[in-house]
Amino acid sequence: MSPNRQLRLAARPEGEVKASDFELVDMKTPEPDENEFVVEITHISIDPAMRGWMSAARSYIPPVEVGEVMRAFTVGRVVESRNPEFAVGDFVHGIFGVQEHAVSDGTDVYKVDIAAGRSPASYLGILGLTGLTAYFGLLDVGRVQAGDTVLISGAAGAVGTAVGQIAKIKGARAVDIAGGHEKCRMLVDDLGFDAALDYRGDDLRGKLREHTPDYVDVFFDNVGGGILNEGLVRLARGARVVICGAVSQYSQVGDFVGPSNYLALLISRASMTGFIAFDYADRYPEALTELSSWLAAGELCSVDDTVPGDIEMLPEMLARLFAGQNTGKLVLELGP
Amino acid sequence: MSPNRQLRLAARPEGEVKASDFELVDMKTPEPDENEFVVEITHISIDPAMRGWMSAARSYIPPVEVGEVMRAFTVGRVVESRNPEFAVGDFVHGIFGVQEHAVSDGTDVYKVDIAAGRSPASYLGILGLTGLTAYFGLLDVGRVQAGDTVLISGAAGAVGTAVGQIAKIKGARAVDIAGGHEKCRMLVDDLGFDAALDYRGDDLRGKLREHTPDYVDVFFDNVGGGILNEGLVRLARGARVVICGAVSQYSQVGDFVGPSNYLALLISRASMTGFIAFDYADRYPEALTELSSWLAAGELCSVDDTVPGDIEMLPEMLARLFAGQNTGKLVLELGP
Repeated sequence: MSPNRQLRLAARPEGEVKASDFELVDMKTPEPDENEFVVEITHISIDPAMRGWMSAARSYIPPVEVGEVMRAFTVGRVVESRNPEFAVGDFVHGIFGVQEHAVSDGTDVYKVDIAAGRSPASYLGILGLTGLTAYFGLLDVGRVQAGDTVLISGAAGAVGTAVGQIAKIKGARAVDIAGGHEKCRMLVDDLGFDAALDYRGDDLRGKLREHTPDYVDVFFDNVGGGILNEGLVRLARGARVVICGAVSQYSQVGDFVGPSNYLALLISRASMTGFIAFDYADRYPEALTELSSWLAAGELCSVDDTVPGDIEMLPEMLARLFAGQNTGKLVLELGP
Repeated sequence: MSPNRQLRLAARPEGEVKASDFELVDMKTPEPDENEFVVEITHISIDPAMRGWMSAARSYIPPVEVGEVMRAFTVGRVVESRNPEFAVGDFVHGIFGVQEHAVSDGTDVYKVDIAAGRSPASYLGILGLTGLTAYFGLLDVGRVQAGDTVLISGAAGAVGTAVGQIAKIKGARAVDIAGGHEKCRMLVDDLGFDAALDYRGDDLRGKLREHTPDYVDVFFDNVGGGILNEGLVRLARGARVVICGAVSQYSQVGDFVGPSNYLALLISRASMTGFIAFDYADRYPEALTELSSWLAAGELCSVDDTVPGDIEMLPEMLARLFAGQNTGKLVLELGP
């Protein structure tokens, strides 16, 4: 049995996640039974949703229990196998958690095709739940149409960069809100979005007014708080507000900040809808086919922010994520 | 020319409406031109929307300008006519404003059928914009189904009493939030709703939990603020939150209270949608036919709260409305 270090939830965080909310334990990797295989985890997806999974509040999936391995989307390599479907050397992705190895019988595990010139990280990003979230959120919930103005908050993040690119593919204008000059420059210069507004600067309301002269048809909100509230002011009649997350709020102690401008929904006959990409699981193949074809055609790129390190770095990776220090998909790459 | 007293907007209110926000002026009723007629106004509808019309903020219709007659839905009697479609003695309804007489060419004016045993006030209530708001809000925006649990805030108000009755007609459970024991008793005993929860009592959250064991499929919110926020906690998966108004917030100085629990929309894959009954104008005839047939069958009743008085009473009528002192449709009946 090979060693296996795991990061387990030690305490439910109050406010920001601290290192002491986790416990590092040294385990052994069990021998695989018949039909099982062992995965050496190479990439761990760092997601805003992790903060919610650590909380006991009612949510769309059960919380991680104290004492359990922290939940995470991961990519890894099969290093031992008694399952004829998975051979040693195969790259796979699944929800293996924050640990170095995992044993699986293949349930909810999928092979990844590195040979096609895609990075392992892209299977956590644009070809993973990130890309699927952007795809179904913008197309099904947001019902984007050519000519629409799409406003995206957290636009330089993993989902945001995917949403903006898909909006452009669909013939919409992409107006972004992001934090900092360099991110805004990247969104316009490198990804070709129509405008990027720095929420850290002055007068976000004035900038929004200037860059959404025809108002906003789809507002894809990853951030919540004051940014959600400002975006609501600019809704076009019949607008769709897509609630994907609230990265500004997850580490809040006490109540979240609610959008005081929510009556814009009434004035604009608009809707605000929450969604979970998991609900579209039966349509993942269709979405992945389309996302892959856009990638192959060079219309879409995977914006990855891969950090080499060790599972112990999870708390600081989460801190980096919630401080908005990542650009694109934040992935922890476990080194040898 | 007969005298005509008018209540004109004198100032845009800050917070609660005051008597000094209006000016009473003595005018003469102009002689009707060819094709015009004169209406003696008998009933003035007192609506929460009036507070919004007095404000200069961007909304779904232009504000009432300072110096203009205050906008109001009204019923009146034709007292002089040079229009062959409208005879002296006809009862009509239209947006004639807060004044004693109006001259009209018949545009957007409709006859009311008092002979059928309906009160003039019912044309401002269940057969007016109130009933239409309840009808389209619950059926089109809320998409209520038999077996659904419908939560209604401001349930003892004009729209609320109509929504609850239509919900029952459609085979749904009606769970109401209202202020005070007597209103709650009326909603259950007289209107047959399934439960009525007094928000003025303790532990609204606990009462909601008790009375919505299968959660809430449609939340029809007239109130906003803390009540909207508590209702969000109880959303069923795929729930529809219908934003009809925010009577608790209109008189607020400064920002409204936003719903801090709005991420329930994400957890429950729910939507929150605003609407304006005016948008359904081409379907008013269909709705009025159905509402009338329910009335005739005794399945639906018009809950009227008619107060005799004078146009000068508008400010106190609005105060009564925003304090939740009315039960059903508040109408000012102008007496001789």
